[in-house]
Formats: sequence, structure tokens, C-alpha cells
Amino acid sequence: MIETKIYQKKNVKMKNPILVEGLPGIGLVGKLAADHMIKEFKAQKVAELVSPHFPHQVLMQKNGIMRMLKNKFYLIPGKKNDVLILVGDVQAVTSEAQYEICGKMLDYFEKKGGKLIYTLGGYGTGKAPQKPQVFGSATHKEIIPAHEKAGMVFGKSHGSIIGAAGLLLGMGKFRGMKGVCIMGETHGGYVDARAAQALLEVLSRLLGVKIDPAKLEQRAKEGEAFMKKMEKEASKQKETMPGSSAKELSYIR
Amino acid sequence: MIETKIYQKKNVKMKNPILVEGLPGIGLVGKLAADHMIKEFKAQKVAELVSPHFPHQVLMQKNGIMRMLKNKFYLIPGKKNDVLILVGDVQAVTSEAQYEICGKMLDYFEKKGGKLIYTLGGYGTGKAPQKPQVFGSATHKEIIPAHEKAGMVFGKSHGSIIGAAGLLLGMGKFRGMKGVCIMGETHGGYVDARAAQALLEVLSRLLGVKIDPAKLEQRAKEGEAFMKKMEKEASKQKETMPGSSAKELSYIR
Amino acid sequence: MIETKIYQKKNVKMKNPILVEGLPGIGLVGKLAADHMIKEFKAQKVAELVSPHFPHQVLMQKNGIMRMLKNKFYLIPGKKNDVLILVGDVQAVTSEAQYEICGKMLDYFEKKGGKLIYTLGGYGTGKAPQKPQVFGSATHKEIIPAHEKAGMVFGKSHGSIIGAAGLLLGMGKFRGMKGVCIMGETHGGYVDARAAQALLEVLSRLLGVKIDPAKLEQRAKEGEAFMKKMEKEASKQKETMPGSSAKELSYIR
Amino acid sequence: MIETKIYQKKNVKMKNPILVEGLPGIGLVGKLAADHMIKEFKAQKVAELVSPHFPHQVLMQKNGIMRMLKNKFYLIPGKKNDVLILVGDVQAVTSEAQYEICGKMLDYFEKKGGKLIYTLGGYGTGKAPQKPQVFGSATHKEIIPAHEKAGMVFGKSHGSIIGAAGLLLGMGKFRGMKGVCIMGETHGGYVDARAAQALLEVLSRLLGVKIDPAKLEQRAKEGEAFMKKMEKEASKQKETMPGSSAKELSYIR
Repeated sequence: MIETKIYQKKNVKMKNPILVEGLPGIGLVGKLAADHMIKEFKAQKVAELVSPHFPHQVLMQKNGIMRMLKNKFYLIPGKKNDVLILVGDVQAVTSEAQYEICGKMLDYFEKKGGKLIYTLGGYGTGKAPQKPQVFGSATHKEIIPAHEKAGMVFGKSHGSIIGAAGLLLGMGKFRGMKGVCIMGETHGGYVDARAAQALLEVLSRLLGVKIDPAKLEQRAKEGEAFMKKMEKEASKQKETMPGSSAKELSYIR
Repeated sequence: MIETKIYQKKNVKMKNPILVEGLPGIGLVGKLAADHMIKEFKAQKVAELVSPHFPHQVLMQKNGIMRMLKNKFYLIPGKKNDVLILVGDVQAVTSEAQYEICGKMLDYFEKKGGKLIYTLGGYGTGKAPQKPQVFGSATHKEIIPAHEKAGMVFGKSHGSIIGAAGLLLGMGKFRGMKGVCIMGETHGGYVDARAAQALLEVLSRLLGVKIDPAKLEQRAKEGEAFMKKMEKEASKQKETMPGSSAKELSYIR
Repeated sequence: MIETKIYQKKNVKMKNPILVEGLPGIGLVGKLAADHMIKEFKAQKVAELVSPHFPHQVLMQKNGIMRMLKNKFYLIPGKKNDVLILVGDVQAVTSEAQYEICGKMLDYFEKKGGKLIYTLGGYGTGKAPQKPQVFGSATHKEIIPAHEKAGMVFGKSHGSIIGAAGLLLGMGKFRGMKGVCIMGETHGGYVDARAAQALLEVLSRLLGVKIDPAKLEQRAKEGEAFMKKMEKEASKQKETMPGSSAKELSYIR
Repeated sequence: MIETKIYQKKNVKMKNPILVEGLPGIGLVGKLAADHMIKEFKAQKVAELVSPHFPHQVLMQKNGIMRMLKNKFYLIPGKKNDVLILVGDVQAVTSEAQYEICGKMLDYFEKKGGKLIYTLGGYGTGKAPQKPQVFGSATHKEIIPAHEKAGMVFGKSHGSIIGAAGLLLGMGKFRGMKGVCIMGETHGGYVDARAAQALLEVLSRLLGVKIDPAKLEQRAKEGEAFMKKMEKEASKQKETMPGSSAKELSYIR
């Protein structure tokens, strides 16, 4: 496997899908919100993405089964628009990998007729906000007012958006797509269920659906635990790899 | 050479081959077991794999001949199933390289009609076990009971499986293959012949063959020596490379 | 997106274009001069280049709109020759990326019928010059005298030219193109408007146009500020990236 | 330019060429010997190789002309066999680059009908030898005796051969080529003209030509000087690169 690959469920039709990306990022805010929607709406998995840029390891599960690290697409049917949610265990760390993976995601979304993208994330401030604001940065000027009405603040977030939350929009624009990065104000140093709830309130207005936030707090705790386990695994990759001391060479036995 | 390449012996027919992977890894447990099978059964070499992701060096041998670093496939004919053993000097260290190499291996195995994969490895605990257990992690639930009967323990190993032992199974599953990672309990800090013997006992039941473990201890010592020599070479690669102090640039003379 | 891509405006005709490259480099000398020409001549944007080797982030702007990091081509119509100016936010840092990107730039320029290349840069000496000289290094001996007449000094600059300013010329030569790297003498430790002005004086003679340097000083200050902001963003990329401590692995949540 | 490329002079015919590789390596022994042959025989340049894995810079020369970093092929006509000499400024440092570049070199050599390869190098011992021996490591057993007769010692050199001197032979073997790595015994810490002379004595016997070593000492001094200059340039690449402190990001201005 030399390039990122998307394995699709066959014969899935989509109605003007809106892509909602919630991969791991600052404060896990986007991931929490997206995972919550998948569970609340019992969304159906329609595609899996694996990439040579993800870690070269599989996870052992308690049931004796292993699983690869993946990104996944879930579908929530809607009246006017279906919602296609993108979640996953990992994001790649290099620029080359991010551009390749986001390109493949957009290829898939484009073939399904998609034109609107929401990317979810945290906007880290280093302070715990009283009531988290929801910041936005858009691909096109004309779509800002409708999103301000839904409770978002534009032009007040500074700096750059790193990873898929930025690239999907930047690269999508070259394909004629529009979209907004929706960022929940957060400290940045911990998993933040309140910022995720603020995101979901905005999203429910934008998508015209009702989202019950009751179980969000519990999911944040699970997210925190999973994250710690994964970081432990990541650091183990090197320690347990024979020859890892001579780290730029292959390991030889 | 830009991609990993497998050079095959011509006109080799295989009968429902089972892939048994024993590349270098924790405690050299898998490599020891696989190398032992090759020698005990006088297995025939049927393919060689070279990769641009292996170190860019050749080894000088005492007979005045040099050799490249390789992975190799050996065939042991069987009644119902032939056994295709995968061994080698090295594994690549980057994710991209591992996915590429495992993909090429699966291409080859798939063309030969293979559907079942066993990957061998060590499960490092930091303690020398009294009597090493053999842990398993499977691609599919339905194949666990048959392997428990052969003496394996499922659901008790945690964390991740790194390298070919994990990826061959994870990637093979997308091609409709099934398989199990078979891990001998080991300390992790030394070459462990006893863990390899525990693996071989399980394997002999699974494959329905008898494997004499007599020479295993001697092979572990040779493995330890070869490993040390290779690590010395690996560290020399840089020292003797002109310009290696400016290590991210090419060397210029 | 796996390779660098140039998005072109449709139906742009060019008349024997001369390429003038002014990407970021030593003292921002080339960038300042090229950006200045674009503004003075109200040059028209004719193509945008995006690359997987640029940082995987988008910049949030004060107007609520985001933008990708890009290189851009602008056109200034001329009597005998149009001038095609190449500017941008970034240059890639690895050799592989630089060769790929410069190759794509030359593909584009070649298709537009271009044969002459000027690359602009600073020649850092570690000292603030009284009156900055303009050094040159050419692809062909026969074009040196005409450039000496325009005020350039050949054979007095030593060492190597790094990045697009060198590669575009070196690689262009294999395509039958000619050109000169035009370097303004500069300290190297700060953004240098005076060196840029010296470049522009030479360029105005070479291109047969008049360039008013009045606003250059102001632009140098803006350049200095933008540079500092970008470096802050660059360092944030890692800090805010979850899992960035385990830096050679992907981040996992 | 995404892959290594060889630019060939048109209509060059070769008669059973023997490849003699002398790229930079330990003690510059191989490079000195190969450069010397080119000058002594006034060999004709027949091809140039450029690679995206070489440094992304061009060298400014005293005559006001710049030049790219290259590898080059020179031809010396012979009675039974022409000799194709491979020299250059640089070797790449990563495994992936070395395999790609050596593969392209072998493609070229194979098309010209070549079947025999000599790679030249130094065998570093950390001691200045009284009278340098010439060690060999061969691709095939049957060609050793003829080379022993020419004064080479087989089976006494240990460890690995790094870079093109090893890979060209290892990879060539898969294409049905044969060859020997010819290594002059040397200290390893300085440019060694005496080891190069020992190599040339062996080579002159193997190729059946006379090589006058008179100017070798002088060339070693020039080689030492060029090497120091290049290392200075290599270290400058980073220092003068804006944004090089944030070294894993692109530089942004």
C-alpha cells in the first residue's frame, strides 16, 4: 500500500451530503462533537480510510480481536441534506501526508456530490472560558452572515488552522466547494466537553436537527482515557522496536 | 529502484499456502522460530524481497562474496496446505515503508492463492516468565476457539502490535484473509529461545507437523551474535559516511 | 494531493515572458523587490501554486476568511517581453520538495514559451554595506557582458545559491533556458529595503521599465512584521498539535 | 523533477562497457582514482545525472557561471571493452535515494550493454597502512581467482559497503551483472592518494591499460580543498535559510 485508500460500502446513495469533519485535534473538541452525533443518530458507517502515513501498528482489543488505525465516514440521512461525518483514531503529522489524505477524502466527497464542508475543532486560548464562544473562519465571504446568525463569531480568531480542519476547506475551495471551520473556545490543555457542547448547539441550528447533549460529559471522560492509552502505545513503538537506538536506520537482527 | 520488489523463482506452484511470518522483532522470538522451521524442514527458497527502505549497504562475507539485505520466502510442502515462511535480515522503520512492503508481500501471497496468515512475535513483559504463555490476537472472532484449543490465550495481551506482525494481518483482512498473531511471552531484553520453543509447540499443533526443538538453543546464540554484529554495522553507516556531521544534507566531496 | 499543482487562469496569453522569481530568502531582498513590482505595475494574478510540501495549515484573516499558503504568478505586459513574476508565502525546505516544485514552475513557464529567467535574492555578508553591490551568477558565459553593463558584478560572489533562486536556473538550463541570479549585497540578519532597491535599479535597466522605489521602505516594515507573525505560527504548529511530544509518530486520540 | 534523471549525449555507442564507479566515499579513495583516470585518458563526458535527492543548491564559480551538483559518466574507448567511468560531487544520504539513483544508473548501463561493474572505495582501518592492500568483495565466486591474480585480497574485509559502491553491485546482480568492489586500505580520516594509487595499479592490470600516477598527489590536495569548501557550503545551507530554526517546517516569510 503506497497511497492512502478509502474502502467504501457498496451502493450507498447520498442526498446532497454535507461533510462534517471531527478528527482528533485541540482539546478533542471536534472529535467529541462528531463522535457524539454518530452515537445519538445511530449513524451508519459507509467508508473506511487507511493510510501508509498512519502508525504501522494494530491495536489489540479485549475481545481477542485486533484492529487497524483508521479514519471513518458515517452517514446520517436528512431531509434536504444527508450529513457525512468524518471521524477517526489519528491524523498524520507530516505536511505531505496531510495533503494526500485530505485530497483522497475530497475525491470521495466530490464523487458523492458534496459541496459544503464543516470542519470542527478547538480554538485554544490557554484559559478556561466562562461560556465558550464558537469562532468561525470561512472559505467565502458570502456565507458568513448565515453562520453569524447561528451564533458564530467571525474575524476574532487569529493564527492558523492546522491539519484536516484547515486543509479540507483550503483544498476544497479549489474544487468549488464552500465551508466553514467551526471552533469551540477552549483551554487547549484538556479534553473539553463544554466546548464540544457549544459546537453542537451551533451545528444543530446549521443542520436543522436536534442534538441531545446529555451523554457528552461521559464521552469526554472516555476520550481522555483512550487518549492516554494511545499516547502510551505511541511511545512504546520505539522502545520495543529492536534497533531503535540507531533510529535512522532500519532495525537489523 | 523506487518501490519494493519481489524476485520470484519461476514456476513454483503452491497448494493453499499458509503464510508464517517471522521477521526480526521483540526478543527475536518470531525470527528464531521461523528460521528453525526452515532449517528443520530444509525448506526451499522461492522468492526474495528487496526494498529501497532497507539500509543502503551490502554485507561482506568471509567467502569474499557480498550480499544485499533481504526478506525471503521459503516453502514447506504439506498435505492439505503448503507453508510459506517469511524471514529476513531487517524490517523497515517508517510507517510508509512498512505499509508498502507489507502490501507487496500480500500481493505475492494473494496471487499464490493464500488465505490464512500466522505472524510470529514476542510479547515483551519486562520479566522472564517461568513457563512462557503463547498469546494471540485474531482478525476474526470465529477463528479464536480453534486456536485456544492449540494452547493459545486470547484477550490477555494489551497494547499494539508493531510492524509486519500487525500490518500483514490488518491489511490482509481488507483482502478477505484471516489470521492470528502468535506471541510468545518473553522478557524483551534478550534473544529468547524458550519463547520461540513455546511458539513452535503451538505452531506444530496448528500446522499438523512435528518440529524438533533440539537445536533451538544453539540458534539463539548465533542470533544474538549476528544481531550484535549488525548493530555495530548500523552505527558505522554514519560514522564512516563522509559529511555525516551535516547529517540532513547529502555528503559532498 | 500528492504532487505540487499549479492552478492557472484560463486563456492567458503571454508574449515571450521573462520569469522573475522573488520567493522568500536571505534578507527578504528578492521578495521585497518582486512584491514591489507587482504593486507598482498593478500586475494581474495568472496562476497559483499549492504543494503538499508547504505547511499543512491555513491562515485565518481578519475578514473572517481563511487562505492557504501559496506561491503565485503575476503578469506585467511589456512591449517585447511580458514579465511573469513569481512570489509567495513560503519555500519548501527539503531537496526533494524544491526539485519537484521548481520542476512544476518550469513546466508552466516552458508551456508559456519562456526562455529567460531572473531569480532575485540577497547575498549575505554579515556586514551592512555602505552602498549595496548587485552580484550575479549566470547560466551561460555569453550573457554576462550585457548584465555587467546594467551594473552587475560577476565572479565576486562565492559559495552556493540555495532554493528556487538557484534550482530554477540550474534546472532551466537543461531545458535550453538562460538566466541570471541577481543578488543584492546585504547583511543577512534583517529585512533589507536598500538591497531590494539596488536590485530594482538593475532590473529596471534589464527590463527597460521605470520602477518608483518610494514605498519600498514601508513595505520592508510590513514584511518584517508578517515574517515575525509567520514564525510564531510555525512554532505553534507543533505546540498545539496533540501528540506532538511523540514527534515522529502520528498523533492519536 | 520528481525522479532522478540522466541526460545523455546523443548517438554514443559503447563496446561492451565496463562500469567503474568512483563517487565520493571513505578517504575519497575511489573518487581520486576515477577522476585521475578521466584526466589521464582525456575521457569524454557522455551523460549527466541530476537528482531531487541531491542538495537543492547550485555552486557559484569564479568565472561568473553557476553549476548544479551532478554525477557524470565519462567514456574511455578500449580494444575489447570501453570503460564507462562514473564520478560526481555527491552521493545521496537516505536509503530511498540511494536505491533510486543506483537503479537509474543501472538502467542506463544495461541499455548500453554493460555486464561488468567495478566499484572503487576506501577500506577504513583507523590506521595509516605501511603499504596499502587492495581488498575485494565480489558478486560471484567464480570471478574471484582472476582478481586475486591482479593483486586483490578477498575474504579479509569485514562489515558492510555503504552507498553506491555496494548497491550498484548488489542490485546489478539481480540484472545478471557481475562485479567486484575494489577497496584501497586507508586510515579513513584524510584524503589518501597512496590508497588511490594502489587501486589504480590493480585497475590497470584488470583493464589492461597503463595509468601514470604522477599527478595523483597533487589531485589529492585539490580534493582535500574542494571537500572543505563543500562542507562549509553544506553547513551554510541551514544557517542562511530563513526560518531554519523551526527546522521541520517550511520557512515562511
